[in-house]
Amino acid sequence: MSRTCLSIVLAAGEGTRMKSGRAKVLHEVAGLPIVLHAAKAAVDAGSQKLALVVGRDAEAVVACVGAQFPSSRAFPQAERLGTAHAVLAARAAIAQGFDDVLVLFGDTPLVKPETLVRARAEVAAGAAVCVVGFRTQRPTGYGRLLMQGADLAAIREEKDASNEERRVDLCNGGVMALAGSEALALLDEIGNANAKGEFYLTDIVEIARARGLAVRVVEADETEVLGVNTRVELAAAEAIWQGRRRRQTMLAGVTLVAPDTVFFAHDTRIEADVIVEPNVVFGSGVRIATGAVIHAFSHLEGADVGACASVGPFARLRPGTRLGEGAKVGNFVETKNAAVGAGAKVSHLTYLGDAVIGAESNIGAGTITCNYDGYNKYRTEIGASVFIGSNSSLVAPIHIGDGAYVGSGSVVTEDVPPDALALGRARQVVKAGRGREINERNAARKRSKPA
Amino acid sequence: MSRTCLSIVLAAGEGTRMKSGRAKVLHEVAGLPIVLHAAKAAVDAGSQKLALVVGRDAEAVVACVGAQFPSSRAFPQAERLGTAHAVLAARAAIAQGFDDVLVLFGDTPLVKPETLVRARAEVAAGAAVCVVGFRTQRPTGYGRLLMQGADLAAIREEKDASNEERRVDLCNGGVMALAGSEALALLDEIGNANAKGEFYLTDIVEIARARGLAVRVVEADETEVLGVNTRVELAAAEAIWQGRRRRQTMLAGVTLVAPDTVFFAHDTRIEADVIVEPNVVFGSGVRIATGAVIHAFSHLEGADVGACASVGPFARLRPGTRLGEGAKVGNFVETKNAAVGAGAKVSHLTYLGDAVIGAESNIGAGTITCNYDGYNKYRTEIGASVFIGSNSSLVAPIHIGDGAYVGSGSVVTEDVPPDALALGRARQVVKAGRGREINERNAARKRSKPA
Amino acid sequence: MSRTCLSIVLAAGEGTRMKSGRAKVLHEVAGLPIVLHAAKAAVDAGSQKLALVVGRDAEAVVACVGAQFPSSRAFPQAERLGTAHAVLAARAAIAQGFDDVLVLFGDTPLVKPETLVRARAEVAAGAAVCVVGFRTQRPTGYGRLLMQGADLAAIREEKDASNEERRVDLCNGGVMALAGSEALALLDEIGNANAKGEFYLTDIVEIARARGLAVRVVEADETEVLGVNTRVELAAAEAIWQGRRRRQTMLAGVTLVAPDTVFFAHDTRIEADVIVEPNVVFGSGVRIATGAVIHAFSHLEGADVGACASVGPFARLRPGTRLGEGAKVGNFVETKNAAVGAGAKVSHLTYLGDAVIGAESNIGAGTITCNYDGYNKYRTEIGASVFIGSNSSLVAPIHIGDGAYVGSGSVVTEDVPPDALALGRARQVVKAGRGREINERNAARKRSKPA
Repeated sequence: MSRTCLSIVLAAGEGTRMKSGRAKVLHEVAGLPIVLHAAKAAVDAGSQKLALVVGRDAEAVVACVGAQFPSSRAFPQAERLGTAHAVLAARAAIAQGFDDVLVLFGDTPLVKPETLVRARAEVAAGAAVCVVGFRTQRPTGYGRLLMQGADLAAIREEKDASNEERRVDLCNGGVMALAGSEALALLDEIGNANAKGEFYLTDIVEIARARGLAVRVVEADETEVLGVNTRVELAAAEAIWQGRRRRQTMLAGVTLVAPDTVFFAHDTRIEADVIVEPNVVFGSGVRIATGAVIHAFSHLEGADVGACASVGPFARLRPGTRLGEGAKVGNFVETKNAAVGAGAKVSHLTYLGDAVIGAESNIGAGTITCNYDGYNKYRTEIGASVFIGSNSSLVAPIHIGDGAYVGSGSVVTEDVPPDALALGRARQVVKAGRGREINERNAARKRSKPA
Repeated sequence: MSRTCLSIVLAAGEGTRMKSGRAKVLHEVAGLPIVLHAAKAAVDAGSQKLALVVGRDAEAVVACVGAQFPSSRAFPQAERLGTAHAVLAARAAIAQGFDDVLVLFGDTPLVKPETLVRARAEVAAGAAVCVVGFRTQRPTGYGRLLMQGADLAAIREEKDASNEERRVDLCNGGVMALAGSEALALLDEIGNANAKGEFYLTDIVEIARARGLAVRVVEADETEVLGVNTRVELAAAEAIWQGRRRRQTMLAGVTLVAPDTVFFAHDTRIEADVIVEPNVVFGSGVRIATGAVIHAFSHLEGADVGACASVGPFARLRPGTRLGEGAKVGNFVETKNAAVGAGAKVSHLTYLGDAVIGAESNIGAGTITCNYDGYNKYRTEIGASVFIGSNSSLVAPIHIGDGAYVGSGSVVTEDVPPDALALGRARQVVKAGRGREINERNAARKRSKPA
Repeated sequence: MSRTCLSIVLAAGEGTRMKSGRAKVLHEVAGLPIVLHAAKAAVDAGSQKLALVVGRDAEAVVACVGAQFPSSRAFPQAERLGTAHAVLAARAAIAQGFDDVLVLFGDTPLVKPETLVRARAEVAAGAAVCVVGFRTQRPTGYGRLLMQGADLAAIREEKDASNEERRVDLCNGGVMALAGSEALALLDEIGNANAKGEFYLTDIVEIARARGLAVRVVEADETEVLGVNTRVELAAAEAIWQGRRRRQTMLAGVTLVAPDTVFFAHDTRIEADVIVEPNVVFGSGVRIATGAVIHAFSHLEGADVGACASVGPFARLRPGTRLGEGAKVGNFVETKNAAVGAGAKVSHLTYLGDAVIGAESNIGAGTITCNYDGYNKYRTEIGASVFIGSNSSLVAPIHIGDGAYVGSGSVVTEDVPPDALALGRARQVVKAGRGREINERNAARKRSKPA
């Protein structure tokens, strides 16, 4: 679609029913503030420009959206005089002359880009206004969409509806597309001669019709237009979002043993033939390659999990974690800013922070990287095919060479050369080549074992 | 309501379908025996006196209720001859002459105090009997409430009901309020001329009507009158209880990212603007102050979490835990009988038992308070701004002074003076003032780092 | 039932919608490949012989079924020419002359043995064919079962059905029982004169009817005939399986506080009066004895939990774990190939691998059995009434005698005699009899404490 598009996101609401010190639109679904869900849908539907109408906590809302969408522009709504008044706060943006103008709500995070695209297509086909509607088995309380053939005649509020009109199950979802060429004239004609003295955007329908303009409807799913006014509705939006993503993920070839217990973030990426066991939480920034298994009770954030890697159960991968192919991070293990090489194993009760582990190394149970001195953080570098004995403390900054061997229970404060054996603490012993000898003797012993 | 009220809680049932060595009414919902839920509802509805009718495991049931409600009095029901017979086991209590008498069931834990209050109000307004009813789409099996205008004419059991009566969707919830002045006379008139030879409390309706007394109905929600006879029903009761509490909690301003995965105890208290991530279990005795975040996979019991504190993921707070403002308890950390000062951090893989940690101290990964010698428990006292290096063992009783510094991997068995450095074990080194020097040098180094 | 029975399990499907590198029938429900669920139902319904029709990944499928059911025989289906063609791939097995022939699908894991038994009973009573049907509120897409009295007249595919036939809510579940004496003749008469040129098993109904043979229907529950074609359906099958097992488990006297959060394996066995808290995952091979409590966030696999033992929260029991009566395994503890004696306690942050712990011993927080040298695994043997101080490293192979005492933070590399005290590492001190002295002194001190 080569038409230009402005999206106006209304985000000025007080949100008092959230009972929060934080603006309503900054509460999150899937780890992303709900206003960003709406903004993202607008951009994904082809908007070149975002106009953000802000009121409460304007600064925080603008900062949040601006960080993600630098081209967005904020318009303060000083008084709260109704939805049409809010839209007109962005008059300067509308006046720039876009082909299409979308009106969205910052507290309605689930609208799909494809629905917006369909609404824009109606405008492209000649409609002055296109309203996003939805069908529901429980229409009570919603404005009803009264159709005349393919055209929308009016949006009737519940309180003004006749008994017959109340039986209509097609309701107003709030979101609209307007023809940019007509938008300002129509919006300016909306009056406030009503009980509350507010300017209602819904009046635009009858105004456009009176001018002989076409007004259309596109139907969305009921779940797309859920507005968030309370934390109960916030949880409902989260559940709908998660349900969609779980289904998409499974259809793409990922096994979710118990989908209702897996929580994705907005940007989780998982390849086919990954298995996710019950009770897994993904924070933002996670990528999982094919063949990996995420065992039960795992928590991942900012982590890149290689092909056929094994995570958990009871693993916590924090930001900056990268697991190589076939690597294993087991139970009660935390990794942060840590690269674990291909085939390496960190199986139990370990903290790896600011660390690099080479391929095929084995980190014993209870190993701790002592990366922090109370003020600064230091790196631990472990080579390939290293054996770190259980319950060791690795005091960073430290480098342990390829093939080295650290005895169990050691506190390691000095670098260990490749192939060396390191033991103890106060009197740390470094014996060149002994690590290899032990490795070779152990390997030989294994080979000579009866099958 | 200044009227006096006796509540009779029937708790004598065998509960054979529970297949348990424990009395049915002692099984728990939200961490509280179900008989206490019923008793609590009665007290919250204004009862001054509880009469507990007991049979199986009488001693344990009486002990359980008595501990919580010392003014309750137990009445053994030797034979099991029907509900009216059970109520009359408490004859001595009824004879004391209360204005209102409530009859509740020890295996019906979800009845709301407000429902009982409404039933009492009907008695106060002149009814001799008020039955708690409920409407259901699946009435089959329940006794139907046959109304005559505003009055209840009879309770008709399923097997005795005509086809027309079976279509009635208003059913008997079991719970009743009786006028104290009429109760004994009405109860004594109930006979046992029926197939099973039992005395049915439901007969009281027609007896009262025959005397020209008013019999009313108050409607409860279907979920209030769920009786627990099997562990499937116990789980259903738990789910209903949790659903109610989750909704209340969210409406009060607490974010539950995935409400179905958060389990409250009967006495959990959470302030507004707390965030609870998925998969959190609250045992009894938890209080969370505003701004705190309870991360995924956390388990809290008997813990007091300060404002803006951070718990988990994968944290276990056991009884006696108190977290100061902004304190942090991270992954794979267990605390028990431990006070963590404001801003202090216990981030990973640590056991803190019988400990006090001062403000702004940092407890390294893998730190263990060795509080137990196999027979006795000892205290660990850590001052403010202390740094405990990772993988340290703190052998209690021990005192570590303000500003002290403990090197990683140390086993600390002797007190550490303020500002001292402590290292090692067999030859523990205490160097006065060195901790401060390190702290200051580290702080200076941090300040001189490029931003 | 003394009749002989052959079951033909069709497991040749491509399963492309699974988007998997693994054959569809090898994906798992409750930890068991779905083809084994079908095979197990056939065997539980009395089949003496299994014929497995294989196509994609034949080798892996045959290996999987053969391992569990050595008497099964595989029949490759080279071309995919329809269900009847698939069944006839097992012609040699059918020709052996069984009384009954069951036809099942390898991707339909939830069919109950009792349903198969009922279908066989119809054959035993004279039917040539018995089709397993199911009633559903959403029949669209399914073949309808058109009845004539008690007989099945035809299976009508959706696309061929009249409007009236589409209103039929009794649908074809796919599974069939055939009279062995008629099976081959009927199957051979099925033609492929249809749009796709395939041989449809469903045509057998009209063929049998044309020969004057009786064709019957037994009704299964809708959930029994769910076929798995996508990972969404795989998750649905898992959920149905888990729901059934949870209900059975609760009715048998096990408390599941939050049943939807407990995941069983196909072979989990739990005795009455066990309590399972929320969020527990059972891998295969778990047995729990009466009175045990499995606390929240626990993961068990291949573990035998004794009566009144306590597991978790946050415990991971791996294969080879055996907990004695009243033993305790607490938070952030992993056990593997480990026997924990009666009354012994392993309360926190511990790894026990390849270990035996005697009765009433106490393993301190942070204890690690160092069982692995990078190549081989070694055993740790701990006697009865041993005290292992916190944060100890036990370097296997090692033996610690009854009544011994290991100081906190020790690295133990040499055997400790009974009743001895062991401390330190480089200079490990072994003082005969001191452990007992400490135990006795501590016990005496406890006795002399004010109550």
